[in-house]
Order: sequence, then C-alpha cells, then structure tokens
Amino acid sequence: MFLRNEWYVAGFSREFVERPVQRWLLGEPLVLYRSTSGRAVILEDRCPHRGAPLSSGEVCGESLACGYHGFTFDPSGTCIHIPGMTTIPARARVRSYTVIERWGWVFVWMGDANRADESRLPDYHWLADPGWVGGSEYLQVKANYGYVRDNLLDLTHARYVHRKTLGTAAVTDHPIRTETYGRGVRVTREMPGIEPSPFFKRMGGFTGRVDHRQRIDFTPPCHVVINTRVSSVAGSGENRSAEFYVLNALTPENERSTHYFWGLMRNFALGDESVTETQQTLNRETFFEDLAILEQQQVLLDCKPVDWKPVAIRNDGGCILAERLMDKLLAAEHDKKEQK
Amino acid sequence: MFLRNEWYVAGFSREFVERPVQRWLLGEPLVLYRSTSGRAVILEDRCPHRGAPLSSGEVCGESLACGYHGFTFDPSGTCIHIPGMTTIPARARVRSYTVIERWGWVFVWMGDANRADESRLPDYHWLADPGWVGGSEYLQVKANYGYVRDNLLDLTHARYVHRKTLGTAAVTDHPIRTETYGRGVRVTREMPGIEPSPFFKRMGGFTGRVDHRQRIDFTPPCHVVINTRVSSVAGSGENRSAEFYVLNALTPENERSTHYFWGLMRNFALGDESVTETQQTLNRETFFEDLAILEQQQVLLDCKPVDWKPVAIRNDGGCILAERLMDKLLAAEHDKKEQK
Amino acid sequence: MFLRNEWYVAGFSREFVERPVQRWLLGEPLVLYRSTSGRAVILEDRCPHRGAPLSSGEVCGESLACGYHGFTFDPSGTCIHIPGMTTIPARARVRSYTVIERWGWVFVWMGDANRADESRLPDYHWLADPGWVGGSEYLQVKANYGYVRDNLLDLTHARYVHRKTLGTAAVTDHPIRTETYGRGVRVTREMPGIEPSPFFKRMGGFTGRVDHRQRIDFTPPCHVVINTRVSSVAGSGENRSAEFYVLNALTPENERSTHYFWGLMRNFALGDESVTETQQTLNRETFFEDLAILEQQQVLLDCKPVDWKPVAIRNDGGCILAERLMDKLLAAEHDKKEQK
Repeated sequence: MFLRNEWYVAGFSREFVERPVQRWLLGEPLVLYRSTSGRAVILEDRCPHRGAPLSSGEVCGESLACGYHGFTFDPSGTCIHIPGMTTIPARARVRSYTVIERWGWVFVWMGDANRADESRLPDYHWLADPGWVGGSEYLQVKANYGYVRDNLLDLTHARYVHRKTLGTAAVTDHPIRTETYGRGVRVTREMPGIEPSPFFKRMGGFTGRVDHRQRIDFTPPCHVVINTRVSSVAGSGENRSAEFYVLNALTPENERSTHYFWGLMRNFALGDESVTETQQTLNRETFFEDLAILEQQQVLLDCKPVDWKPVAIRNDGGCILAERLMDKLLAAEHDKKEQK
Repeated sequence: MFLRNEWYVAGFSREFVERPVQRWLLGEPLVLYRSTSGRAVILEDRCPHRGAPLSSGEVCGESLACGYHGFTFDPSGTCIHIPGMTTIPARARVRSYTVIERWGWVFVWMGDANRADESRLPDYHWLADPGWVGGSEYLQVKANYGYVRDNLLDLTHARYVHRKTLGTAAVTDHPIRTETYGRGVRVTREMPGIEPSPFFKRMGGFTGRVDHRQRIDFTPPCHVVINTRVSSVAGSGENRSAEFYVLNALTPENERSTHYFWGLMRNFALGDESVTETQQTLNRETFFEDLAILEQQQVLLDCKPVDWKPVAIRNDGGCILAERLMDKLLAAEHDKKEQK
Repeated sequence: MFLRNEWYVAGFSREFVERPVQRWLLGEPLVLYRSTSGRAVILEDRCPHRGAPLSSGEVCGESLACGYHGFTFDPSGTCIHIPGMTTIPARARVRSYTVIERWGWVFVWMGDANRADESRLPDYHWLADPGWVGGSEYLQVKANYGYVRDNLLDLTHARYVHRKTLGTAAVTDHPIRTETYGRGVRVTREMPGIEPSPFFKRMGGFTGRVDHRQRIDFTPPCHVVINTRVSSVAGSGENRSAEFYVLNALTPENERSTHYFWGLMRNFALGDESVTETQQTLNRETFFEDLAILEQQQVLLDCKPVDWKPVAIRNDGGCILAERLMDKLLAAEHDKKEQK
C-alpha cells in the first residue's frame, strides 16, 4: 500500500492552530493541532473510548481533550485524564506521530517512531531561504499520488496540457537524461537556444532566445523538486537569468486521493509582491489543467481491461525508474514486516 | 443484523396520510399510508409484478394500487385486483406488517405477525398524558442506531458535547447505578445539591442549588426513555420542581443510518406554548451537536484496525449492559431461525 | 452482460463535432468526434501510453491527439504520431469501433468489426422520411436498459403512470397479440371504437370514437419501435386518421444506467412547427413520469430477497418473449467466446 517509514507533508504551519483539525493520511484519520506552547502535534483521530473524533474536542495546554466524554491525551498519545475516574486504563492511548516543523511546512513520520530519521527529511529549504521568494498552496487531487508523480517526472505534457502557458514544442524535441540521485531519481533536460515559453516571457521578461534547463528530482516516497533555469543565450543582446523551484509534496490521502502541497520559489524580483501574485495565479491555473486529466486517469485505469499495460516511450524514463524504485522499497518494507 | 420480533417506531401519526410514502426500515423498503377509513397501513414497497414501488400509486379505499400497472393490495398484502385479469395469481402478494397506532406515534412489528405482542409495546404514554406537554420531532442520523443508544445511555457526554446548554461538571462527578429493569436496563444518577445546568436555569427558572436526578431506561430493541427531575434543595429558599421525559425511538433505516424519532414532554408550565417552543429549539440544537459526533463515529469505526477494542470505564456500565443484552437477543432470534 | 455483436445508438449526428466528447457505452469509456472531413469516429477513450482520456485532446484532420502527451490516433485506432519519437511501438493503439451514421443518428457496432453487418441495422427511417415530421431527444435513466424495454413492451402502464396524458382504461380492457417478428418480437393491441386518449384529442383533434391500434416491435439488443394509429370509427361523422412512430434506442451506459435516445414522428400536420413543439413537450413529460418508476425499480430489485420472482400476467407476454430472446442471444454469444 504505502511506505510507512518515510516523511510526508501533513500540512502547512499555518494550518496547525489551537482548534484541532481532522486530516486523513495514508487512509488513516489523524488530528492536527498546535499546543499552547506552540508545538505542532499529530495524533490518531479516534478516541480509544468510543471511537469518537478527538478533533471534535479542545486543546488544553499541551494536550487534547476528546469532544465526546473528555478523555484527554498528551502529545505522546497517552491518556492523562478521564473525567470521573481516578485510574486510567493502560490501553487508553492513541497512536502519536513524530513531527518536524520546518520552512513553514509540517512533516510527519508515518511509521515506527524509533526509526524516525531527520537526516532523511526531504529538502525544501528554498521555502525559507532569503535568496528566494514565492508562495505555497494546497490542492486536493482525486487520484492516486503516483499519477501526480508521473505527471511531474515527464514535463513533455506541458506542450499539450499547458499549451497556453508553459507549453513549448522544445520539451519534446530535446531528450532527457535520467540517473539515480541521492535516494531517488533525477531527470534533466537541456534546451539550449530555444524560444522562451509564454510563462518565462511574462515572468522573466525574456524576449530573445534562451538556454532553458529543467531538472526534476524525485525522492521517495512522494517528493518532487523541479528546478527550472532560463538564461539569455550568449550574444543575444540580453543578459538575463531566472530560476524557479517548484516544490511538490504529494501526500496520499488514500489510494484514490492526494493532498498536493506545492510551493513556487524564484530568485529574481525578490521585492516585487505583484510578481508573486502573478506566478501563483498562473501556476494554480496550470495545476487545475493537470487535475482534470489526473482524475480521469484514475477513473479510466480503475476499469482498465485485465491485460492492459502502459506503452512506454523514451520520455517515460524518469517515471519508470521512480516506479521501480517505489516497488522495491514497498517490497522491502513489506518483507521486513513479515519477518517480525 | 436486526431483531425482527420487536416493535419499532415507523413514523408519527401525522405522516400517515392518503398519499403513500416510502420509508426504509431495517434495510427494507416499506410503504406507509392511511386508508380511507383512517387505518394506518404498512406494506412491503415492492410490487410482486415488476418490482415497482407501491408508494408511486394511489390509495383506493382500504387498499393501495401500484402506480405502474395498477395491481391493488389490501392491508393484509393480498392482491385484490389486477387490471385486465379476472383471476389473480396466488403469488401476487406483498408482505404486510402489524401496526399499532398510539399516542400519536405508529409502531410496527417487523417479524412474525403471529407473534406480534401488544404487551411488549414500549411505554411512551407521556406523549398523550394530559399531565404532560411538549412536542415530537424527527432527525436522520447517518450512523448505526447502537451509537445513538450508547450516546443516550451515558449522559456524561453532556459536559463536553453540550457544554453550552445541558453541560454541568456534576455528571462526571456523580457515579451511576446500573440495573436490569423490565426487559431492559436502567441507569440512574443522583446529583444532590448541585448548581442547575443552563437548560434548567432557563426552562425551570431555578436560581439556587438543586437536587437533579437522571434516570435512563433502555428497552430492546431501540427505545430509550430518559426522565430528568430537578427540585430545589430543601432550605434553599426556593420551592420548585420540574420534570422532563425525553422519549427516544431509534429505528434502524439500515446498518449505517437511523430514523431518530424523539419527544420531549414536561410536567410544568403546561399552558405556556412559548416554553414548548423554547424547549424544542434547545433540544433540537442539542441533538445536532450529537449528530456530528455520531456520524464521525460511524466513519472512524468503519475503518478501525482489526484489533481495535473500546476502552471501557465506569460510566459505560449502561452501554455495556445494553450491548450484551442486544447480543444475547440477536443470538437467540438467530438460533430460533436456524432451527426452523 | 451485454451483447457485443450488435448495433447500438451512440449519439445524435449533432453531437459529433470537432471537440471530442466522452461517453460510456456497455460500461466502457469511448470518445466520440467528427473528423475534419466530416466522418463520425468512435474510439476507446483510454490512451495506451498512460491511460489519459483522448477526449481531453484535439482533432487534427482525421485523427485525434491525446491531451496529455500528444499521442495521435487515426480513425482505425492506430497511433500515427508520438512527439519526440521517430518509431512507434506496435502496442500503441486503441480499440476503434465501426460506425454507421444514418437518419441523423449514429450507430456503433460494439463487437468484432469483421462481423459488423449493415443489414442488421435497426430501422429508424421515419426520422428522415419526408412523409413524417417530429423530433428526437435524449434522456438518461439510472436503471438497467431491460427495465426501460419492459416499460415500452407493456403499454398498459399508460393507464396508471400517464393517467393525465396517454391514459385510457381501454389498454387494460383489450388483450394483446404477441408474435415473433423479424429478429425480434411484435406486440399488437387493437382497441376498436374507444374514446380517444387526452393526447390524441389534443394532437389529432379527435372528438368522436376511434379505432386505436398499438404495435410495438422489439429488435435486439435494445431497439423498440412503437406505431400508434388512430382513426375515426366508420359512421362517426368524423373522417380523421393520425399515426405516430415512437422510436426508442435504449443504449446501456452500464448495468444500472441507460442512454435513452428517442424520436417521435407523425404523418399529419407536417408543416406545423407548433404541433412538433407540443408533441415533444408532452412526450418529454410523459417519459419523466416513467423515469421515476424505472429508477425506483432498479433500487428495489437491487435489494430484492433471494427468492423473489416477478409474478407474470397476460400483458407481460411481450416482455417475457423479449427477455427469453435476450437470454438466448447472450448465452449464444457467450458460448461462441468460450469456444475461442
């Protein structure tokens, strides 16, 4: 099903407030809240007493009191108070999840807390780097997170899905280079001396020909960092350069739905708020174009004939490598569980 | 699944009119109508001819004619007329259900008609007792009727779910007494000398301390009668007393949905319509607070881990006794069916 | 499930335009488009590359380019272009379906293209015959197409479902004659010297008694042609005659939903547009009355007891013959598939 011993994005820091919120991750109900001292906490959202949602309750200091009969749990998931009782049954606890809050995003380790490994946190530092500005947003996609990952690993779709914004014939005319990178997969496409896409004409002010590089890094289980660098061709009379990072955390809500957290950061026009507004609006519209196709893929592949297999082409190199990697990791985690 | 040889509330008298109505009970489609002579009738809502709903048809005297091809059934479910036919096939009949109409509510026996036992009718006589006034209403709850029953059998939830209306810390500070009572279970909580809840302050005009007694009677399969009596503490300077009956019939629509018929009757301010309006409004709002939690319970327990078991505490005494009783009755009815 | 080697109506000619459209037939996703040269084309709507909908794409001449990565398919379903590729994998193809466009309707052969047999096209020629005028419309029915067929094969329902429009007691007072006819079933009812129905009073201007004949022809898999002829009784002082053809193509969307394409053609008042408007409006309202019952039948029969069997009467003669015929054809097609 899903890799458990990995970091997923559970939400933005701004979503962790004193009023608890329910969110489903990997098919499980979680409650998200911020304690009085400011800590971001994630617990199982199912009270061990009667199965009521803790998210119906109230934050009391560091703890959360269920909204049904007041069972109160600390951030470790231990029940510390039951109204009308002096002793607390040992089984009165909910699962708690290890959380790291960084760069304005909140990461959750969905597996064995003892194995939670900060060194494996995906790198989204551009979100909080003073050399970069931009914004981050949320989109729910009613499709498996794998379809979203494949969408990002093969950017040739821009020519068709985003023909009015990002599209440029160059993406299909220039081949990709695929390689393993860190724990994941890197796909690179160099497009030297091409006509800039409508997006870069508008955002970066390019008029002449440009060198355009796309670099896509996938890190398991669901992190995709896209770097796009555009610079004027030497001798074109212009001397401009612009770079974007598109940060994509594709957290499975369940097998058929994805919490899509995305950030878009640039390294130019740092003080110009209106550029941020424009880039966010354009990107949001672009992602809505993907949404329609991704959700249809889910429907169409849910009822595919038993012998249906995708036809692979050269541009699928990154998708195929990523899929194989995920299959290997899922099998390994499954084997480890079986051995116990 | 469900106990069959029991009385359930099928609707209010005011819902049985000449125009037939479809209602699902225990997962089965029924048609409810009132015949020309005034009799409340309940039949299976599936014509034996082509499976069309009889509820699409018209009442003709005592009988009901299907709205598709005119097959006509009398209150016993026997087909008495088929247009264009002079003989009627023996198999042309629908199931009919024994009905008792009393106190403005309509009760239906969902099992073997020969065993329909009026002496087992649940007691809701306060609805039509001249010493009591109030009203009755309907609420659909998208949750199993057992969750609603448990909600009513443990009123400590009032402190959390209804903290703005019924809530008082006293409910968790005073223990309950649990006992078998009639065919069911009785839970009693005595709270002597407590601060009156916001509800009783407003409804009964209490200002000083009160003796507050809750008595909850559960009768299988789904009847819960709650009696609340509040009276001024001796020597408090006041001399008031007020009593309510909350009458709760939790008829399963199916495994995941409940027709919740409730009445609220009081023995004071008998002639004051505005008090009725206020009590109904407050109670309605109170039940909406429960609704949100009950429907979430259904969702969260539908996907509970295989080894999940509720943690029980002292206040669950009534719930546990009621659940055991229902399990025993269900097993007995199932065994009897197997023997046949 | 469904007969494959048969003609179904996929849509009206007016629905095949340059912008591709998704429509599900027999539980499968299809894309409908009209090529630049004017040809109506139907392909499987699932790109063999990644399962995206071809209907998200664009028509390019005779072909259709997928809206995700630009795979382009000709009307035979062969992939003729993949952006960035010089060779095309042999497996890159979608299923294509044989189409015949006639009388303003588009017919599709859902089985083996080699067996597509134009001589078996159902006869709906009245749609384009200069001696007849009328209109054709679409209705989605959330019920199995067999329930719609049965509705049309037993017109006695008019007396109940359509009592305000088509209804006349005569339909149940006069018996039907049932016979095999061509590949299908014919049901005839003669009603000499009856009072005209409200519909014929209004549409045909009849005031005195009439001879009314209904003739219903069912042709597998889902074609029902109803001819209604009304003429003044000899010696009634009137000398009028009017005839209608109701053309019904009941294409399964899936097991529980039907695309209902219907036409209504008359042989009188040929030049009067207002009569067309009136007849279409009346018929549309009439079909909405059926819709409510048909969709309830689906719900009620989905949960029927295991031993439930319909009670058959004389007027079901046509329904029963049609059902037996369909069962025989389905079994034969299934056997043929098994032998392969």
